[in-house]
Amino acid sequence: MIRVNVLYANKPGATFDIDYYLAKHMPMLRERMGAALKGMTVDHGLSGGQLGIEAAYRVITALMFDSVDAFERAFTPFAGEIQGDIPRFTNITPTVQISDVKI
Amino acid sequence: MIRVNVLYANKPGATFDIDYYLAKHMPMLRERMGAALKGMTVDHGLSGGQLGIEAAYRVITALMFDSVDAFERAFTPFAGEIQGDIPRFTNITPTVQISDVKI
Repeated sequence: MIRVNVLYANKPGATFDIDYYLAKHMPMLRERMGAALKGMTVDHGLSGGQLGIEAAYRVITALMFDSVDAFERAFTPFAGEIQGDIPRFTNITPTVQISDVKI
Repeated sequence: MIRVNVLYANKPGATFDIDYYLAKHMPMLRERMGAALKGMTVDHGLSGGQLGIEAAYRVITALMFDSVDAFERAFTPFAGEIQGDIPRFTNITPTVQISDVKI
């Protein structure tokens, strides 16, 4: 099992429309990925490790797939549509990585 | 529900002993947090969003708790012991944040 981690780092002037993300972007992504998508999490940053400190990331999302190959086969046909939707909810360029699920 | 995200950024010269982390650090943390810890994930970075590109993070961990208060009550008594174990498996100072679980 792999996770595709998508991280939207906080920075001065960063905007992020969490309502659009949850109501439009993630449902669209779920629909396009179909059965290849085995699970997802969306974390909305509240604070640093202690309250009162600003969160380093506005949003941290993870998408689970059986394998890198399964992710690439599901994502590639819709990459343009999914990435093209990003400016509708944020001006942050996300960091994306593929991770091996250890726990 | 909240997640405590712990991110170990990759950098030149970074070291991370994933075997120690999985066999010693995370079980210790799980034991100390007790029933307050509602779940955990550990992602080990393989690559960037495409294979062949270096992963931005060596490890991305998330710990679930019912609330910020539940996390602080569980963590604070063991903060010194848990943080003191970090140099045994990495020379990276992790970024920690508290997030609201949206999905």
